[in-house]
Amino acid sequence: MSTPPPQRIRTRVAVIGAGPAGLSLAHMLALQGVDAVVLERSSEEHVRSRVRAGVLEQSTVDVFDQLGVSADLHREALRHKGFYLRFDRTTHHLDFHADTGRNAFVYGQARVVGDLIDALPGRAAPVIFDAEAVAVEGIGTDRPEVHFRTPHSTGVVEADFVAGCDGFHGVARATAEPHVRTVQRVYPFAWLGILAHSTPVTEEGMYSAHPDGLSLHSMRGPQLSRQYLQVPHDTDLAHWSDERIWKELRHRSAADDADELETGEIIERSLTRLRSAVTEPMRVGSLFLLGDAAHILPPTGAKGLNLAVSDACVLSNALGGYYADRRTDLLDAYSVTALERIWQTQAFSWRLTSALHRHDDEFDWPLRRARLQRWVASETARRELGEVYLGLPFPTDWRYR
Amino acid sequence: MSTPPPQRIRTRVAVIGAGPAGLSLAHMLALQGVDAVVLERSSEEHVRSRVRAGVLEQSTVDVFDQLGVSADLHREALRHKGFYLRFDRTTHHLDFHADTGRNAFVYGQARVVGDLIDALPGRAAPVIFDAEAVAVEGIGTDRPEVHFRTPHSTGVVEADFVAGCDGFHGVARATAEPHVRTVQRVYPFAWLGILAHSTPVTEEGMYSAHPDGLSLHSMRGPQLSRQYLQVPHDTDLAHWSDERIWKELRHRSAADDADELETGEIIERSLTRLRSAVTEPMRVGSLFLLGDAAHILPPTGAKGLNLAVSDACVLSNALGGYYADRRTDLLDAYSVTALERIWQTQAFSWRLTSALHRHDDEFDWPLRRARLQRWVASETARRELGEVYLGLPFPTDWRYR
Repeated sequence: MSTPPPQRIRTRVAVIGAGPAGLSLAHMLALQGVDAVVLERSSEEHVRSRVRAGVLEQSTVDVFDQLGVSADLHREALRHKGFYLRFDRTTHHLDFHADTGRNAFVYGQARVVGDLIDALPGRAAPVIFDAEAVAVEGIGTDRPEVHFRTPHSTGVVEADFVAGCDGFHGVARATAEPHVRTVQRVYPFAWLGILAHSTPVTEEGMYSAHPDGLSLHSMRGPQLSRQYLQVPHDTDLAHWSDERIWKELRHRSAADDADELETGEIIERSLTRLRSAVTEPMRVGSLFLLGDAAHILPPTGAKGLNLAVSDACVLSNALGGYYADRRTDLLDAYSVTALERIWQTQAFSWRLTSALHRHDDEFDWPLRRARLQRWVASETARRELGEVYLGLPFPTDWRYR
Repeated sequence: MSTPPPQRIRTRVAVIGAGPAGLSLAHMLALQGVDAVVLERSSEEHVRSRVRAGVLEQSTVDVFDQLGVSADLHREALRHKGFYLRFDRTTHHLDFHADTGRNAFVYGQARVVGDLIDALPGRAAPVIFDAEAVAVEGIGTDRPEVHFRTPHSTGVVEADFVAGCDGFHGVARATAEPHVRTVQRVYPFAWLGILAHSTPVTEEGMYSAHPDGLSLHSMRGPQLSRQYLQVPHDTDLAHWSDERIWKELRHRSAADDADELETGEIIERSLTRLRSAVTEPMRVGSLFLLGDAAHILPPTGAKGLNLAVSDACVLSNALGGYYADRRTDLLDAYSVTALERIWQTQAFSWRLTSALHRHDDEFDWPLRRARLQRWVASETARRELGEVYLGLPFPTDWRYR
């Protein structure tokens, strides 16, 4: 599908980045008759295989249903009612489904992206892969341009608007930078992750809270598990042998009511430093920021993809209003509308992160244990957590009217 | 009522301290036929006039009803449905009553103590005032002794058990110290408090959250207000003129939907450093710790008095079981039973404190605002908060069986 681009492309919306935000937006715009072009720096093959955790909120799945891209998802996604919580050697199931009637869907981000790409032909212009956006110009005008290069050529997309869906380190955010403010919180810890040939502890994910720190256990297949350990921010992976990793995972997740953790061959390891960041406003002139280009969340609670789709809904609605009725008020409100849900989700991620991770303070563990106990013991507290875990309502419909 | 004590007093339970914990316990024991003696270092007049904020949980009032000491309370206490929350120049009422059907009762701690003292004669031995406990001996035996001194004499109370209700700096906690562990968190801020001749902003208390820090406004009378400002931990009151205090109160509580704050003569000022502390276990041999002797909470949420009464219930029930059926298991469980509610309450106080106070982190204010917005917008979140604000169920009845 990687076609050599024409020298100049004229469209209404230039979308930078073919991740969940950019591809969802392309569908939403196409279904409203708004032309868009998507530029993606990587190859199609690479995009389709970028492995990220995928826990979809019910609200996100509802949008994919409306976009008609969820057939495979409904066939293959695991429906989770909540997650397991283990502490004090006991396992609890936080069953948000029982409290709210809703589900989370586990479906890898690569599959989401693949489904969105597969459904594009005949609906919207195909994505231009291997096309790296190198500069966004004229964002103070109504005729911004995205300059890009492919392995063999260069090109320019002329548009009315630019949607920056190219992540925290992309050109969109860099272009907006002088005009916006990014607030962040960097946590003093990281997640050491492994992918291993071992039977997962539980089908639904399990957060194990321990005075020594978090461990997280999730299923990638019947004999394939992905597991994480909270480690200090400056951890060197070279100091963590397989043996040490398994020993620590067993130590932090030990329980009286479950079998010992199964070990196995570790086929992949990673280190993810945790941070939260929000860029405000999310619009500078004709440039809009969506998803990771505007905000970063810690992986706890798996909110990133869902928030990207939520941003796409808000922008799609606003652009729909502009092209249908020449309304500019919705575009003006984009940032404020999107940010309300973003900050609610940041607050949730922070709450889950602070309850599950070790902080170096003697008051920390008993206080955290009390918070975890309340989630287990109080239906009200569980429902309150579940409402956000399974997804707050999206701020707007993606379709204008 | 201050009588010179006899040289040796023999009783079943020696209670140190005539605050809410000690006096409640004395009533509960008397109603179960268990003899007790209460020693109080201060004069009766002083005890009856120690001004502390008094926000009583519905659960606490229920206990006072059962003890038959609540006639004045029901006549005079203000029934609050929740509290006001002001941020972004707008006032919101968190009406927990609407969400839970319960109330908080505002009734000064001095009145609570006065009512408990008034109801003692004919039911229990009177409190020995002006009697300072100077040492607790033999806590590793079943015949502990509390040595005390009055202005004119010294004495000893011989008992089966000692209930330490004499606060965080009392002799009970000091005696237990080598055998227990106190975990604490000291906050980097304090409350600068004033009592002023000015019309309170609202009848129910108002927490005003602001990027620059908390202000808190409460009513002590139609023309009498108590107000607080979050200030740094090391604040010197001498640097705060009346003018500066009013200016800062107005700045932090400014609102579009309410009149400007009324100023007036400041008749009292104070500085309260905030901290949380818990001592575990709350029993060493025949010595039990209750209330502030075992735990300190920040004033946010006003939980101290309620937790003291909750501790008294647990110990009363256990001592009732001991004297009725020679059961020792309830005494053995005292600490664990009481601590569960204590940690839940600490977690609540910490949550309220961290949501309302400024922390020096750029991520702090927008994150706090999101948390406050959720309390306003979500009935589930408000109900969850209200359940703890109005009082979690007490761990046990105060009466054994």
